[in-house]
Amino acid sequence: MNAHTEAALRKQDDPLWVNPEIVLPLLEGFIRDEITKVGISNVVLNLSGGIDSAVSCVLAARAMPPENVTALMLPYKTSHPDSLGDAQTLARQLGIRSMTISVTEQVDPYFEKFPDMTPLRKANKMARERMTILYDQASALDALPLGTSNKTELLLGYGTIYGDMASALNPIGDLYKTQVWQIARHLGVPEEIVSKKPTADLWPGQTDESELGFTYEKADRLLYHMIDRRRSRAELERLGFEPAFIQELENRVKRSQFKRRLPLIAKVSMRTIESDFRYPRDWGR
Amino acid sequence: MNAHTEAALRKQDDPLWVNPEIVLPLLEGFIRDEITKVGISNVVLNLSGGIDSAVSCVLAARAMPPENVTALMLPYKTSHPDSLGDAQTLARQLGIRSMTISVTEQVDPYFEKFPDMTPLRKANKMARERMTILYDQASALDALPLGTSNKTELLLGYGTIYGDMASALNPIGDLYKTQVWQIARHLGVPEEIVSKKPTADLWPGQTDESELGFTYEKADRLLYHMIDRRRSRAELERLGFEPAFIQELENRVKRSQFKRRLPLIAKVSMRTIESDFRYPRDWGR
Repeated sequence: MNAHTEAALRKQDDPLWVNPEIVLPLLEGFIRDEITKVGISNVVLNLSGGIDSAVSCVLAARAMPPENVTALMLPYKTSHPDSLGDAQTLARQLGIRSMTISVTEQVDPYFEKFPDMTPLRKANKMARERMTILYDQASALDALPLGTSNKTELLLGYGTIYGDMASALNPIGDLYKTQVWQIARHLGVPEEIVSKKPTADLWPGQTDESELGFTYEKADRLLYHMIDRRRSRAELERLGFEPAFIQELENRVKRSQFKRRLPLIAKVSMRTIESDFRYPRDWGR
Repeated sequence: MNAHTEAALRKQDDPLWVNPEIVLPLLEGFIRDEITKVGISNVVLNLSGGIDSAVSCVLAARAMPPENVTALMLPYKTSHPDSLGDAQTLARQLGIRSMTISVTEQVDPYFEKFPDMTPLRKANKMARERMTILYDQASALDALPLGTSNKTELLLGYGTIYGDMASALNPIGDLYKTQVWQIARHLGVPEEIVSKKPTADLWPGQTDESELGFTYEKADRLLYHMIDRRRSRAELERLGFEPAFIQELENRVKRSQFKRRLPLIAKVSMRTIESDFRYPRDWGR
């Protein structure tokens, strides 16, 4: 057994390892099927320069003719110039269409009305402005808006409800961040994008991991055992996870549950939307 | 039996009639419980001057101390001045807090970038801008954003996904438009609001019923039998509904199903958000 085979086997023993030969055709088929079965042939997504949207974008460009894919770059005046540059490089490399639309002119007038806004409020306002542009351009292009939130973010609630968490369909929402990295390398996403520190780029110097207080690698291992394997707290402790960290992630998942559900409707009739009236998104289309 | 009792009996025979003595305590309790159980004591909503948000607002002001309720008035430069005036009258009457924030400065810069935007695209952009303000002010006020979409709109998809359809909780989402009218009169909502023609006020002269091509009264009767009573097409025809109208509403309900569901996530793991990982919004809070 040579060193290469050994490394490959080790990887495959890792429960977080995903088999690209199974997962990639599945994700590409998902995009193609879900778009074409509603009679649409285009897809649009926000390409931030980060790894999540890069992977969604490459998957879209493999699933659809590249000319049917449009990437939107939506910088704010303080966005790091590399974000836009990296996004443009990827779009060029894939041969897809792209558009750059600044959000500054739309969000600054609101920020001026509330000069005491916290960075978090500003970040959420920008994320939602980007969603409104994604949906508007989807309408203009007769395209479905593709999501770019990974499973780690979705479970931890580390995203903006009705902002970056909003989409019609999301090819990477069941992949943990570390799995997105693995798939990204396999797909040949440019090294500048794969190796940069994850950041929402919402203020200068921001990084996800320093804000969260733990690494994605550490969170993903625990989330996998907690959520996918449904292990109890005692089992998680036996696996070596610290009680305080288990508690912290459990709190995060529970506190953010509202971001993963629809608006709650007061039930007063025989059939209430989301309680008794509940079909797939494409029921009967 | 006097005329008054007779009229009351006739009403109660109508399947669309709702009993305010049952429904009002239920809706007020829903608002109070859902807000307080997540440790929040304030509620915020967008008050447009129309009947739906007026009813949501009155319910909130009955459910909570009025000083814990904030109404946002978010006019655009072409909004009818009566919309703002009627909203302000209601807020004053209820003794709740209110804020007026223009959306013009935020949406016009975007409209200028795309001078060929259709009125529908502009309307959706404005509805989403209003959502971003609702959520930002909710964050500033430590309040939950209250929804104002009725069941008719939700079923017909006559609203903007991630715009006016977005909220944390919606007290009127299981009431048809005609039921909202009935409840509004019972609650003493000002006559100017109850009797005005329903309109999203997104362009001058717009009315819902002329845009939809049928009245709410007519749609609600059919939707009640179609959705709540699950009647077949043959049964609906026997009840006197025209085949073309049945088909039209069925198409509308089916085509808009995506607006009533969460983003679709490609399943690649043992537990996927919304497929296998699905709890109430307030699971374990």
